[in-house]
Amino acid sequence: MGQTIVMKFGGTSVADAERIANVARRVQREVKAGNRVAVVVSAMAGVTNQLVAQVDSIDRMPDQAEYDVVVASGEQVTVGLTAIALHKLGLKARSWLGWQIPIRTDSAHAAARIDAIDGDQLSRRMAKGEVQVVAGFQGVTAEGRVATLGRGGSDTSAVALAAALKADRCDIYTDVDGVYTCDPRIVGKAQKLAKVTFEEMLEMASSGAKVLHPRSVEIAMNHRVRLQVLSSFEDKPGTLVVDEDEIVEQAVVSGIAFTRNEAKVTLQRVADRPGVAAAVFGPLADAGINVDMIVQSASLDGKSTDITFTIGRAELPRALEVLKAIKRKVKFDRAATDAEISKVSVIGTGMRSHAGVARRMFETLAKNGINIQAISTSEIKISVLIEEKFTELALRALHTAYGLDSA
Amino acid sequence: MGQTIVMKFGGTSVADAERIANVARRVQREVKAGNRVAVVVSAMAGVTNQLVAQVDSIDRMPDQAEYDVVVASGEQVTVGLTAIALHKLGLKARSWLGWQIPIRTDSAHAAARIDAIDGDQLSRRMAKGEVQVVAGFQGVTAEGRVATLGRGGSDTSAVALAAALKADRCDIYTDVDGVYTCDPRIVGKAQKLAKVTFEEMLEMASSGAKVLHPRSVEIAMNHRVRLQVLSSFEDKPGTLVVDEDEIVEQAVVSGIAFTRNEAKVTLQRVADRPGVAAAVFGPLADAGINVDMIVQSASLDGKSTDITFTIGRAELPRALEVLKAIKRKVKFDRAATDAEISKVSVIGTGMRSHAGVARRMFETLAKNGINIQAISTSEIKISVLIEEKFTELALRALHTAYGLDSA
Repeated sequence: MGQTIVMKFGGTSVADAERIANVARRVQREVKAGNRVAVVVSAMAGVTNQLVAQVDSIDRMPDQAEYDVVVASGEQVTVGLTAIALHKLGLKARSWLGWQIPIRTDSAHAAARIDAIDGDQLSRRMAKGEVQVVAGFQGVTAEGRVATLGRGGSDTSAVALAAALKADRCDIYTDVDGVYTCDPRIVGKAQKLAKVTFEEMLEMASSGAKVLHPRSVEIAMNHRVRLQVLSSFEDKPGTLVVDEDEIVEQAVVSGIAFTRNEAKVTLQRVADRPGVAAAVFGPLADAGINVDMIVQSASLDGKSTDITFTIGRAELPRALEVLKAIKRKVKFDRAATDAEISKVSVIGTGMRSHAGVARRMFETLAKNGINIQAISTSEIKISVLIEEKFTELALRALHTAYGLDSA
Repeated sequence: MGQTIVMKFGGTSVADAERIANVARRVQREVKAGNRVAVVVSAMAGVTNQLVAQVDSIDRMPDQAEYDVVVASGEQVTVGLTAIALHKLGLKARSWLGWQIPIRTDSAHAAARIDAIDGDQLSRRMAKGEVQVVAGFQGVTAEGRVATLGRGGSDTSAVALAAALKADRCDIYTDVDGVYTCDPRIVGKAQKLAKVTFEEMLEMASSGAKVLHPRSVEIAMNHRVRLQVLSSFEDKPGTLVVDEDEIVEQAVVSGIAFTRNEAKVTLQRVADRPGVAAAVFGPLADAGINVDMIVQSASLDGKSTDITFTIGRAELPRALEVLKAIKRKVKFDRAATDAEISKVSVIGTGMRSHAGVARRMFETLAKNGINIQAISTSEIKISVLIEEKFTELALRALHTAYGLDSA
């Protein structure tokens, strides 16, 4: 009978004619194995950045709907080229843009969310052996406008399509060969995980691991889409992202993630009275600025306190504008900022049933002379904020401390 | 009240951010004058060639529907950027792709013809002062596939849109400032024509003058769309393409055009019997090869003759394949080819009422020692085939002979 498979190829996997031919051969192998295949492709590596630069050169604050028209063109090129490469191998293939399927999104241009995908026509064609080549990253709004999902959106397209097609598997082909316990470029002893749970993958993706987009993991988790991350250049097994009950022996900590993309803001000597937090974080939320960690120190004099929080580094200028606007109302001495920080997170579903995970983290960092500036935790994750220059040291020390080093 | 105007900008006019800003300023001027404006744009200069090269690098004989998906992306980029540039000037503007309007075409991918344009929504929006930015060169088939009109198709898009919108004028902005009596790069004394008739423009465009695409002139003629060709870089009047009755004093010859894109084929010693021409030109037509001139010499021995014809130079290899396939049936000694030819045409509506136009052409060429290899005529055009190396000499001599030289 064969399986229904969605294969997603990112920008580096379709970067030139030769690589697109390679993609076509991988697809051919699945078709020959009797599977029904839909392929989701990104824009060729570098193309989206070029398109964004073209928009920037005209207006740095463009109409988002028109921005989407421009940047969505990158995937349009790739679907056509991929379909042509598939034809060349003698396969039946057809390309699809967001509006043709359609992939319905909301109207939040440049960061749209998929509302619905009509998979019927694609399913019928796949059943006849035709490969469906779908443009990632894009959809169409109820108003008939082109919308894009924001960076990394092609992963989301692939998983949502897999859900719509009730696919047996969604294979994310990329330039790494799977999900590692930590970034192998920094921690040489990092190991590839054979399996990881949706929850862990979601925390990893949200904590800086770039292998999958968080939104795509969220959809996969909600629709129980079996995800696989694997290399488009090498022939070896990747990492399966699966339900927790598929993993018999769960490690306490399965991975260590990090991000250098945050900035820390400290409001010094804020009046210590009810409603202050709301007065600060309400306007930031209204401005669309995502606040990650928040630490409020105990009041020393009973009158004022310090509030520290982190935001995306790119949003720092906008955040400072917001703070300037509310300063008269909220009352604080000054907003001190620090962009030279990084966030390190240890992640593992096994944490739920094991005590002492946090303590080991704090002890390991202390032993290495690394000061913790802020802490935030979830059920399966502990994140700390540290000085950026200690990032590599912290990652390697924690990797060893949690027994993740390869032999 | 103002007028309804379609403004079309070609690839060199939208080649970079600065030129797109210049386009926006020209549009702004028309809006400020109280006009309702639709803008049609091509892909940025060089982009379509790059896209075609990308397709070529994968397959030189691609599926034409998928080829269209790739190449139509160029105009998608330009409409978005142009709309953003208009917004920056404070104008209301919205971009439109072929499928959004829709611009309906037939299914002849890569060379599609426009069947219908629904201009209602655009008209309503234009009436409210919103500039409509429309992607040239593209449309959508009844099957919902992207189709392109073939090279030069953006002119056609603009004129067809002007017809659908019942526009008062269709202004074709380009890198030349109008229609000349001959190519000014070759004939220094060439003059810009203030007005030219549809028929003349059509013959000129079909005979090698690249300023407008023949199909666009045909549509303008059929729908009586007032066309204007003018420079997007300079502020001066261009050339109006109008009905014959708008031109009071009609020159006998209004322009001299030429093309170096043809090749000559001579079938030597073809059996001189009925049905031979059909046996040769039928299969060529079936292969989609357009034959321009045909000359059959008188039979010398009553048994065989030579047939000479011209085709597009790019189609020569395919034509020779067709001839090889029919050689056994048609019987001829050999097919001699000559790609070093050019076609020179004198054009003028006044020819209808003036005798001696052809004789002056032949005498002028003879006086300059230029041999005529073939002749074809229409009501308002005489074309001759000559050795390519004589092209410049022929053009200058004829330009003088017909009294077209500027003072």
